[in-house]
Amino acid sequence: MASVGIGLIGTGFMGKCHALAYGAVRAVFGDVPTPRLELLCEMPRDKAEAMADQFGFARVTDDWQNVVSDPAVDIVCITTPNKLHAQIAIAALEAGKHVHCEKPMALTLEDAEAMAAAARGSAGKTIVGYNYIRNPAFQHVRKLIEEGAIGRPIHFRGFVDEDYQADPDLPWTWRATKAEAGLGALGDLGCHMISMAVELMGKVRSVIGDVRTVHATRPSAEDGMHRPVENEDIASAILEFDNGVQGVFSTSRSAWGRKNYMAVEVHGTQGMICFDQERMNELRLYQNSGGNTQGFRTILTGPSHDPYGHFVPAPGHQLGFNDLKTIEAASFLRAIADKADAYPSFADALHFERVIHAIAASYGNRISI
Amino acid sequence: MASVGIGLIGTGFMGKCHALAYGAVRAVFGDVPTPRLELLCEMPRDKAEAMADQFGFARVTDDWQNVVSDPAVDIVCITTPNKLHAQIAIAALEAGKHVHCEKPMALTLEDAEAMAAAARGSAGKTIVGYNYIRNPAFQHVRKLIEEGAIGRPIHFRGFVDEDYQADPDLPWTWRATKAEAGLGALGDLGCHMISMAVELMGKVRSVIGDVRTVHATRPSAEDGMHRPVENEDIASAILEFDNGVQGVFSTSRSAWGRKNYMAVEVHGTQGMICFDQERMNELRLYQNSGGNTQGFRTILTGPSHDPYGHFVPAPGHQLGFNDLKTIEAASFLRAIADKADAYPSFADALHFERVIHAIAASYGNRISI
Amino acid sequence: MASVGIGLIGTGFMGKCHALAYGAVRAVFGDVPTPRLELLCEMPRDKAEAMADQFGFARVTDDWQNVVSDPAVDIVCITTPNKLHAQIAIAALEAGKHVHCEKPMALTLEDAEAMAAAARGSAGKTIVGYNYIRNPAFQHVRKLIEEGAIGRPIHFRGFVDEDYQADPDLPWTWRATKAEAGLGALGDLGCHMISMAVELMGKVRSVIGDVRTVHATRPSAEDGMHRPVENEDIASAILEFDNGVQGVFSTSRSAWGRKNYMAVEVHGTQGMICFDQERMNELRLYQNSGGNTQGFRTILTGPSHDPYGHFVPAPGHQLGFNDLKTIEAASFLRAIADKADAYPSFADALHFERVIHAIAASYGNRISI
Amino acid sequence: MASVGIGLIGTGFMGKCHALAYGAVRAVFGDVPTPRLELLCEMPRDKAEAMADQFGFARVTDDWQNVVSDPAVDIVCITTPNKLHAQIAIAALEAGKHVHCEKPMALTLEDAEAMAAAARGSAGKTIVGYNYIRNPAFQHVRKLIEEGAIGRPIHFRGFVDEDYQADPDLPWTWRATKAEAGLGALGDLGCHMISMAVELMGKVRSVIGDVRTVHATRPSAEDGMHRPVENEDIASAILEFDNGVQGVFSTSRSAWGRKNYMAVEVHGTQGMICFDQERMNELRLYQNSGGNTQGFRTILTGPSHDPYGHFVPAPGHQLGFNDLKTIEAASFLRAIADKADAYPSFADALHFERVIHAIAASYGNRISI
Repeated sequence: MASVGIGLIGTGFMGKCHALAYGAVRAVFGDVPTPRLELLCEMPRDKAEAMADQFGFARVTDDWQNVVSDPAVDIVCITTPNKLHAQIAIAALEAGKHVHCEKPMALTLEDAEAMAAAARGSAGKTIVGYNYIRNPAFQHVRKLIEEGAIGRPIHFRGFVDEDYQADPDLPWTWRATKAEAGLGALGDLGCHMISMAVELMGKVRSVIGDVRTVHATRPSAEDGMHRPVENEDIASAILEFDNGVQGVFSTSRSAWGRKNYMAVEVHGTQGMICFDQERMNELRLYQNSGGNTQGFRTILTGPSHDPYGHFVPAPGHQLGFNDLKTIEAASFLRAIADKADAYPSFADALHFERVIHAIAASYGNRISI
Repeated sequence: MASVGIGLIGTGFMGKCHALAYGAVRAVFGDVPTPRLELLCEMPRDKAEAMADQFGFARVTDDWQNVVSDPAVDIVCITTPNKLHAQIAIAALEAGKHVHCEKPMALTLEDAEAMAAAARGSAGKTIVGYNYIRNPAFQHVRKLIEEGAIGRPIHFRGFVDEDYQADPDLPWTWRATKAEAGLGALGDLGCHMISMAVELMGKVRSVIGDVRTVHATRPSAEDGMHRPVENEDIASAILEFDNGVQGVFSTSRSAWGRKNYMAVEVHGTQGMICFDQERMNELRLYQNSGGNTQGFRTILTGPSHDPYGHFVPAPGHQLGFNDLKTIEAASFLRAIADKADAYPSFADALHFERVIHAIAASYGNRISI
Repeated sequence: MASVGIGLIGTGFMGKCHALAYGAVRAVFGDVPTPRLELLCEMPRDKAEAMADQFGFARVTDDWQNVVSDPAVDIVCITTPNKLHAQIAIAALEAGKHVHCEKPMALTLEDAEAMAAAARGSAGKTIVGYNYIRNPAFQHVRKLIEEGAIGRPIHFRGFVDEDYQADPDLPWTWRATKAEAGLGALGDLGCHMISMAVELMGKVRSVIGDVRTVHATRPSAEDGMHRPVENEDIASAILEFDNGVQGVFSTSRSAWGRKNYMAVEVHGTQGMICFDQERMNELRLYQNSGGNTQGFRTILTGPSHDPYGHFVPAPGHQLGFNDLKTIEAASFLRAIADKADAYPSFADALHFERVIHAIAASYGNRISI
Repeated sequence: MASVGIGLIGTGFMGKCHALAYGAVRAVFGDVPTPRLELLCEMPRDKAEAMADQFGFARVTDDWQNVVSDPAVDIVCITTPNKLHAQIAIAALEAGKHVHCEKPMALTLEDAEAMAAAARGSAGKTIVGYNYIRNPAFQHVRKLIEEGAIGRPIHFRGFVDEDYQADPDLPWTWRATKAEAGLGALGDLGCHMISMAVELMGKVRSVIGDVRTVHATRPSAEDGMHRPVENEDIASAILEFDNGVQGVFSTSRSAWGRKNYMAVEVHGTQGMICFDQERMNELRLYQNSGGNTQGFRTILTGPSHDPYGHFVPAPGHQLGFNDLKTIEAASFLRAIADKADAYPSFADALHFERVIHAIAASYGNRISI
């Protein structure tokens, strides 16, 4: 297989994650094209050079347009602030590049739709970084449901919480603005859970939602003046999936103690299955089997839960967060090699965006007590 | 203190629980009036006699009206099928008796309101058997919130699940009918969680709900013909409390693997607290304290969590389900001795009934995706 | 069935526990003789009277010899300080009474042997209060092993920890003396685990032990002078059972955070089973069944785990510490009614005493590194 | 910093792990010398070529002596079958190479001592692959103990179990022979726990041990004839550390359900700390702090637990098994750059070997019951 040139824009949290993933993916999987770490984009240029030296990229630039237009770049990885996703992705697609874009797609639904439209008109393949659905433990949940391990699904609950905005004294930042951040908890965390819900239950048909901004203002770090928080800290919704099943959803970025809580329950006619990303290497399964030994089974992942075995050949040894991006990169490289669509493409991920924006927009028909 | 005559109607699950509670409460607490197990009502009479011999009741009857009118009976304990609660309770109150009634109050909101009205017009005290709020672990949750251990509450999640109606092949019973059972999961399980939510957060102001009957029909055990299930298997709602806080609520009687799951989370500005009745002797507390040792603390109950110490003087030794009813009985006996209102009285519990009936009646203003 | 007169000596932690158990056992089980709470012994007499009023005993005394000689007393319950067990038990047996004695049997192995000898020469039945083996969850462990659920047992681990002697600043008490307390952690806690080990694995054939006194002296509460701690805070041993299986055992009364930790693992050729009394209503079972859904199953106790159903007819509702003594009382009442030996009789429990005294006496043949 | 040439011998479980670690370490840490994947050794040669292509090595050989003598190789990574460790390591050290050897050092204590002697006489640095002590969660355990978070350590318990030899029907392999495998569970698993024990408690002074071979023979896959299992399936010991503290140790390779169970408890005068590698991203801490909120705290690792933050800047996102080897590689590269000794060097690891061989050799002075 020919090698594939990687152009990475951004070197922060997810930028490093992409660099590690494309750096490791060939050694882990063997059967994917070899990525070449071709061009790294960061500002200023000396930072770009330092990070390229660390990450192992061949060349640097401080202008993302150079990445989009570089002939040696096949995949453009976008890990910039979210508000830049749309223009970079669209430019890259117009230049015929494949695009690996971090989530959420964009700040507004309009931008996300424009990205999906650009993807439809381009030869480039697209994928959005919903990495948690790559977890072998989570894929085992999906597979068990598909195989009928819990019968027919009848109810869903999904929660995603962190506490990075829990502290009331935290200073005001761009995260609090619609212009810079778009949605709050829904855009940062909630969309992950929607991607997981759809993976297990299929698409969402309708929502009834309710959102709350817990900390209406925050003090500016510069002048101490309080400025408004324009987006939600907490959002909850009752979902209905296309298959008619009811779901409950809630997300908070102000949930003390929750670091990467992504808890899922699927209730079925013959069992239940539960998963939480904070214990990402295990899942819990209950099957109605009669007798006096029924109980939730804690299943530790291992080589029988693909693609765990590509990382470690022994069970219980555990994958980490960065390994999920490596799996995602393998998936994208294979799609490109096969000239097939990757999942979730811009078209697929647009659905997740629609759901979170619908929750943000919805107001329930309350019944007073 | 003078002794108090107990008249118990019903000898099933909760009837036995009342008998054990009033039999043990004086030995456990010491400072409550001594209950006399005076009169037991069951049908037929020979069953009443056998159960009175087992439970230690002095006399028997097979007609509840005899209990209501018996001069030696001070407290009428109602543990009959729910549809009989209202007429017995109202008759007992009219006879000036104190009434200890199992939950839910009645099948319909109208009956519950009639019971509350009867209580207002009677010298008798009332209490409804919301026993889970008696748990020292749960009361410790309440106390910690009151003391500010998690700052100001900002979000609530509460779930109550069992699996006694999970099996699709389970025969049709009276539980499936509005006439005999009233509400489904909401009436049997959901009202418990509302009592717990109100204990921690205060009253509910409004709800948006969604209910589902998973198994639309069930086969009759007699003729195998399928008959309709008239009430809900699953109900979910977004709540708003009087303090403005958003809550998420869901209940299912068809949740495989859940035996007595009553899980509560309260998110606060400085911490979070979690509890699940399936591990009824522990709770989990996270407090924002900085440093690198922050984490959810699993607190085992002990003598410092009142009234645990009346049962066992050493921590970690654990109370059981029946002990909760003993605490409830002590609370009612003390209220009667003090000529004070018990909690939750019929007036208090009416609020819980209103919430579950509102959820059952509500239909959200859905936004289609 | 005729009623059975109970004479209880002691009203502390375990005295109250016995009073509650014999007060409830008939209502719970139905098919056992009805206990009469006949005579309560405590000093001084006015305390005896107050406790008899609370517990529901008919008469009182401040001299245990009156209990032993009272014609209306059938069962003598001994919940005094441990050093008094032997003389009271022997006197009661000589008077032909049945004896329900708390554990450990005595301070010394010689006294325990004298008690067992007295039992052999008496018509009275005996039982020692190893209540943890009564737990339906623990009995389910035993039953699963017997049924072959984990194949042939090949290894055992058992630990029992509390933290009541963990604080270095705790004052010196009688607990620290051989004359008043006998063994330390082994006598108070360790013997419980030996009773549990024997229940699951059969008798112990040999031990290699090691004991440690962590806090060599403690300050007297009176004069602040440090006095020696004469017995062990921690004891560990490698066991060998009569069936040839190796076991690991450890106990500590200075284990911060452990409140009633009694953790058991049995490894078998086809599975493993684990239990911890701090979560006394559940157990964990792993069975080798192939496939990709293997895992430890958390089984919540319920009516299918006898005698849980006598307390509550629904699973997951949980028993408490005091319920275990009620099961023990039922077992003793049934043995007496059937003129059969109860378990563990003085003869049975003598084995547990032998094991802990052997551990205390053993010194391993160390290999220096 | 100059780059460092890596020569890797072996491409199995740990060979791939080394390749991934040296491939990622520079991108993860930034401040370490850049490894060059110089020479890969595997047999036959075409397998070596395929794996070099996958792992990214520049050149291949099918003879380990070529690695040892290659001038471009600075570090020789030994991931061969254990019986080859000694001769390769000694040859590499004699050639002046740095040696990164997998554990255990060798099949016999004599070989391990020869390796340590060779290290003393060489300019090459050495490190043995005790990767579990690299885990940030485990290092946080060590740091908390050092900082006095649990007071003075008074007791240790350590267990390490897997189930890869649990199945009685598993065919006989070289693992069952002393000549090919050396020790059984002690050599494969137990030595890891000794490395962890020493990390937390200091060196081991003496042991009393007991070993068992559960499955005395196993059927040959070739002819079905049963052949003897020459080494232990289970080993247990009571340890004494140089600081005088008692420890309990047990290991099994036949423990159904245990996949990578490495459970540690350290009891201290002011608290307790627990860790299990099967949940490698968390630890549990109890501190005596008085009050009614005491409990074990489940701490999720994050950037405050070095070097977690080099992998992910957000807490709770989790590292995996392979990340531990990356940390180990960074540690070795830094030691080499600093001309300092790495830990655990051959001299350090020799202590772990001595402990497991002492356990295997010890026979306790049993006291019969």
